[in-house]
Amino acid sequence: MLSLGIDLGGTFARAAVVEASGRLVSAAKTALQNRSPEGVVATIHAAAVEAMKAAGNPAVSACGVGVAGQLEGDHGVIAVAPNLGWRNVPFGKLLSDSLGRPVRLINDLRAAAWGEFVAGAGQGCSDMLVVFVGSGVGSAIISGGRLVVGASNVAGEFGHVKVVTRGRSCGCGEQGCLEAYAGGHNLIAQMREAVAGGPTALAALCSGNPSVLTPAHLEEAAEMKDGAALAIIERAGDYLALAVANYVTVMNPTRLVLGGGVLTHAPTLRRRVTEGIAAYTNASARRAVHVVTAALGDDAGIIGAGLLATAK
Amino acid sequence: MLSLGIDLGGTFARAAVVEASGRLVSAAKTALQNRSPEGVVATIHAAAVEAMKAAGNPAVSACGVGVAGQLEGDHGVIAVAPNLGWRNVPFGKLLSDSLGRPVRLINDLRAAAWGEFVAGAGQGCSDMLVVFVGSGVGSAIISGGRLVVGASNVAGEFGHVKVVTRGRSCGCGEQGCLEAYAGGHNLIAQMREAVAGGPTALAALCSGNPSVLTPAHLEEAAEMKDGAALAIIERAGDYLALAVANYVTVMNPTRLVLGGGVLTHAPTLRRRVTEGIAAYTNASARRAVHVVTAALGDDAGIIGAGLLATAK
Repeated sequence: MLSLGIDLGGTFARAAVVEASGRLVSAAKTALQNRSPEGVVATIHAAAVEAMKAAGNPAVSACGVGVAGQLEGDHGVIAVAPNLGWRNVPFGKLLSDSLGRPVRLINDLRAAAWGEFVAGAGQGCSDMLVVFVGSGVGSAIISGGRLVVGASNVAGEFGHVKVVTRGRSCGCGEQGCLEAYAGGHNLIAQMREAVAGGPTALAALCSGNPSVLTPAHLEEAAEMKDGAALAIIERAGDYLALAVANYVTVMNPTRLVLGGGVLTHAPTLRRRVTEGIAAYTNASARRAVHVVTAALGDDAGIIGAGLLATAK
Repeated sequence: MLSLGIDLGGTFARAAVVEASGRLVSAAKTALQNRSPEGVVATIHAAAVEAMKAAGNPAVSACGVGVAGQLEGDHGVIAVAPNLGWRNVPFGKLLSDSLGRPVRLINDLRAAAWGEFVAGAGQGCSDMLVVFVGSGVGSAIISGGRLVVGASNVAGEFGHVKVVTRGRSCGCGEQGCLEAYAGGHNLIAQMREAVAGGPTALAALCSGNPSVLTPAHLEEAAEMKDGAALAIIERAGDYLALAVANYVTVMNPTRLVLGGGVLTHAPTLRRRVTEGIAAYTNASARRAVHVVTAALGDDAGIIGAGLLATAK
């Protein structure tokens, strides 16, 4: 059985034809031009036609869409999509009308986690935690072979666990969230604060223009033993490690999959995180878990979205 | 369909005949005399005969036993039961031979959680977290109507999440565990340290004999605005609140059931915990959750054990 998987990001839409095994048959990628719901539907439609054509226009049962945003229940409504500036858009119906087949919307991180579970780093296990650290911090839980969604579809909101009371302000409006310390956007904010606050190699690395700083500069400064960069990495790494370790302790997974641009491209931070996870996870859960790296890269989301299109 | 539920504690064994609805048909309680595995089997047998007789000796399908200890997989072996001084006892087989019917061993906290889920504070919901604070700190997770057991049967080891790095030593051999601050045994240890360390109303309350201190004295001293007692409660309460709030944030349950002797009988601590949970849980999960009190008391364990005897 084949299905159509879509990954709707902030700048691109990707479409793919996916086998029930998780194998990618074909894929296409199109830049978003017009970010109105109708414009995005047209872009996805074009990408889907291209992917279908590359696969020889096979019969496809259903379509799953991974969305970087907050979904309202399971009804196809996007409550908030910050990258697109959307609020309460009935996107499932719009896209279903355009494609002429059923459409299921899925949180993008859950889609990627499900792709890894079926066809990537989670193959063969039934209890898995996935933690992604990119511009934000997110997670997904698979327990007994099933995706844990929670009572109101917000299970796995790992970026917003509190690592300290009355801590840094987070984009979610609360204080002390893990993401406020360890998410990519907030690492950059802390780097800018460091540049404004005193001498640091980060100032030279951005040639005095803090607006161009990225997490790659943080790594570069850390390799130069810059105190400000190391302090940011140590704090973010320790909070991340403690939170992930406690997550593993309570969920007792076989596999912990780490992914996302920040963890992938910031080896100093990643090392501190993996060392901390080993140190802080309770021994009985630690014995059961293998810490692995996400294996499917950008394909995880379209594969998982395609597979979840037809899952119950 | 009827089943037999057993609760094996450190000083008593309780037996009950339980309906599939969770209703208790009859119950019996017998003190443990001889704590050898054979002695305990004989005591349970006697309690079971008494409970069965009180129910009119009906047909009973299977027997579930809630055990205060660590089980090895699902094979009926008790790996460690600290209250009984047991290690690696094939208790399931011993009891099954004595009772002449299949026996399933279940962690006592999961048994109590399942009892609350089916017949108590969790009735009618499908996503529930249970946190018990008694002499230790434990939890159980029910997600999508199913008990989460984890990859190696240790999911829900909430007492051993780390609330601080390099913190107080815990009975599990690690440092900084939640239980090392908030469990009843460790509250008492902290009270004794306070008596040894300086002036506190706790010294007068135990008439200078710290070995008689209980969590009830902690409450009493807190009501007298004793600084040492308040400091212990504030630290334990804040760690407990933050850990529970984060648990709710990632699991997104409909109900959070709080139980156990310490939370039940220490209103100052409980108030601090519930206020902290409301403050630290991420808004989206907070909107979905109701915080409730365990409803079945001592019966939760035998009811849940009886029900889980026949669950798949």
